[in-house]
Amino acid sequence: MNRVAVIGVGVTKFGELWDYSFSDLFVEAGSAAIIDAGIDGKDIGSIYVGNMSGGRFVNQEHIASLIADHAGLNPVPATRIEAACASGGLAVRQGVMAVASGMHDVVVVGGAEKMTDITTEKVTQILVTAADQEWEAFLGMTFPGLYGMIARRHMHEFGTTREQLAEVAVKNHANAKNNPTAQFRFDVSVEKVLNSTMVADPLTLLDCSPITDGAACIILATEEKAGEFCDSPIYITGAGQSTSTIALHDRLQMTVSDATINASKMAYKMAGKTPGDIDVAEVHDCFTIAELIGIEGLDFCDIGSGGRFTEEGCTAIGGEIPVNTSGGLKAKGHPVGATGVAQVVEIAYQLRGEAGKRQVDGAEVGLTHNVGGSGGTAAVHILER
Amino acid sequence: MNRVAVIGVGVTKFGELWDYSFSDLFVEAGSAAIIDAGIDGKDIGSIYVGNMSGGRFVNQEHIASLIADHAGLNPVPATRIEAACASGGLAVRQGVMAVASGMHDVVVVGGAEKMTDITTEKVTQILVTAADQEWEAFLGMTFPGLYGMIARRHMHEFGTTREQLAEVAVKNHANAKNNPTAQFRFDVSVEKVLNSTMVADPLTLLDCSPITDGAACIILATEEKAGEFCDSPIYITGAGQSTSTIALHDRLQMTVSDATINASKMAYKMAGKTPGDIDVAEVHDCFTIAELIGIEGLDFCDIGSGGRFTEEGCTAIGGEIPVNTSGGLKAKGHPVGATGVAQVVEIAYQLRGEAGKRQVDGAEVGLTHNVGGSGGTAAVHILER
Repeated sequence: MNRVAVIGVGVTKFGELWDYSFSDLFVEAGSAAIIDAGIDGKDIGSIYVGNMSGGRFVNQEHIASLIADHAGLNPVPATRIEAACASGGLAVRQGVMAVASGMHDVVVVGGAEKMTDITTEKVTQILVTAADQEWEAFLGMTFPGLYGMIARRHMHEFGTTREQLAEVAVKNHANAKNNPTAQFRFDVSVEKVLNSTMVADPLTLLDCSPITDGAACIILATEEKAGEFCDSPIYITGAGQSTSTIALHDRLQMTVSDATINASKMAYKMAGKTPGDIDVAEVHDCFTIAELIGIEGLDFCDIGSGGRFTEEGCTAIGGEIPVNTSGGLKAKGHPVGATGVAQVVEIAYQLRGEAGKRQVDGAEVGLTHNVGGSGGTAAVHILER
Repeated sequence: MNRVAVIGVGVTKFGELWDYSFSDLFVEAGSAAIIDAGIDGKDIGSIYVGNMSGGRFVNQEHIASLIADHAGLNPVPATRIEAACASGGLAVRQGVMAVASGMHDVVVVGGAEKMTDITTEKVTQILVTAADQEWEAFLGMTFPGLYGMIARRHMHEFGTTREQLAEVAVKNHANAKNNPTAQFRFDVSVEKVLNSTMVADPLTLLDCSPITDGAACIILATEEKAGEFCDSPIYITGAGQSTSTIALHDRLQMTVSDATINASKMAYKMAGKTPGDIDVAEVHDCFTIAELIGIEGLDFCDIGSGGRFTEEGCTAIGGEIPVNTSGGLKAKGHPVGATGVAQVVEIAYQLRGEAGKRQVDGAEVGLTHNVGGSGGTAAVHILER
């Protein structure tokens, strides 16, 4: 396989962006990445777009054609990838293959979602299309409900405390304060998390990632092209992907993300790395409990110990393995189709030493972890400078 | 690039399949392809699923996770590709890259759409999400309307006659009679097409492809694996893809599909073939006019001459270049996300000499042509035995 480099990155502000259309978001992030890479439109061989539900959020399918058109990039081939909240991560992996196969030398991979043009109730109905429609959604299940059950069971099985869950939000909000594009740039305390509005027991409002508009974009290239355009390429050395049951009740153990375990094993093997080699990671924290089962599945700590590991500060900047320096989905925001790409953008900043006040000193190897649904899909990438 | 072989194919009956769920469709086609290839589940490295709008047709996103789960194939990585009616064709191209990159040795590529569980009016609203929502759909445009305008303009510019358009339907219905899985297995006459219900001037009901449930599936493999499992592999030697403007009114010339021209040039170049080398082709005929601009864009005949070329029988079985031996979208049916994969299934049957009464004698090189929207996306594949 050809080696694949990240030679440019770009991201929009995340938040309630009422003056941006869906395609505006992608075009802004894409333009920033193109400028960062120093390439021209004519250099681009292909475009991948991660997007979960343009068809329902903004009545638009045929997403990649729209994006290529509005970005002025016709006739470049453009392909939309969907895997619920892992759409971005899977788009990255398709981009890696497009370069690795020799089909294209320079590929744009972006993700975008426009979620705030409809009511919150509608958003919840759309997000639950990532669960099994016939066995979960039809019966009234929602995503806070699914993750609430995972959290309650994690507490029962492993003695995880309500406060340990809240510590995830506290850490990620603290990191987001130093991320200029994050949606929530303010601190929260454990007490504030515990006392915020109950959403789905035991998860309160501040355990949940927000509804977000946003886009992120990266430019991938062959090693040869990277040398031509870029002084500090970051290489994607591992790319793992896995499925598990789409329905939570069919999972062997609801507190263990086997898709995360399988995808990360694939990525670690491909990169020749172990969990101990990772200096910084972006982990899928759509709810606080998700970060715990994420860091456990990635083998940063033992199964069941994520709560204590977090409480002890091991995942904070300066800790054993800093997690979600960007603020994570929880505080940076979660425009679902963009998230997996935005994670790669953050790791690229970290490995280039451009993460400002949230920089992890001397970071050389980073990891991204993107999940679809309650764990039906997982994608893990390992990046090295 | 590694060579990529088609080692197995499968397809469901196309039609109003009220006793099949969305995932039933994929599982039936996939199982048939797996049996045809003689592989086991454990041989499968990855799954690609072409699907246009599961989110709106059946309230289900996270399509590929659902399919992998219901097919009993977890933890195999599974990825959904969307490009409106070209979703299947783009899924094929992603599968080709997954094998060509060395990432996976054996890959399942399928397409599925479940369109008949809702009202026809709703289907029309969903299909128009393949057009530009803000500039076409919002203003009341529909797909019959868009293709009606293309047809009227083709008649004006090139002298194409209403009868020549009807000849496309007559030919494709005649071919579908010999395809056991086709939706419409009966003849129509030019007179019958002309006198059927007006849909969007000049197109009548029998100029339009139907609303269809169905799925199709192929198994791709490296040359080495193909040798292990298969006596008669078909090789995908060319894979082209292109975008054009998503909105018809932005197209340089509305009667010319520049995405088709660009995608086919890419595929011809990659395969080292010319249009004259093609023995049999499946061309995207969502409306009769689409087949004319398709065969013109593929350079089987000059721009503007598609009507005469068809009227003279050049695209019939036994003619210069037989087109849509399966019956095409028009008579085989058009389950939108499955269509691009079903086209490859038909060409595989033809190149293996297994097309029964619709066999093109001595076919050695075949082509598939899949279009999204009014021409915003095109994918072209060249296959050889």
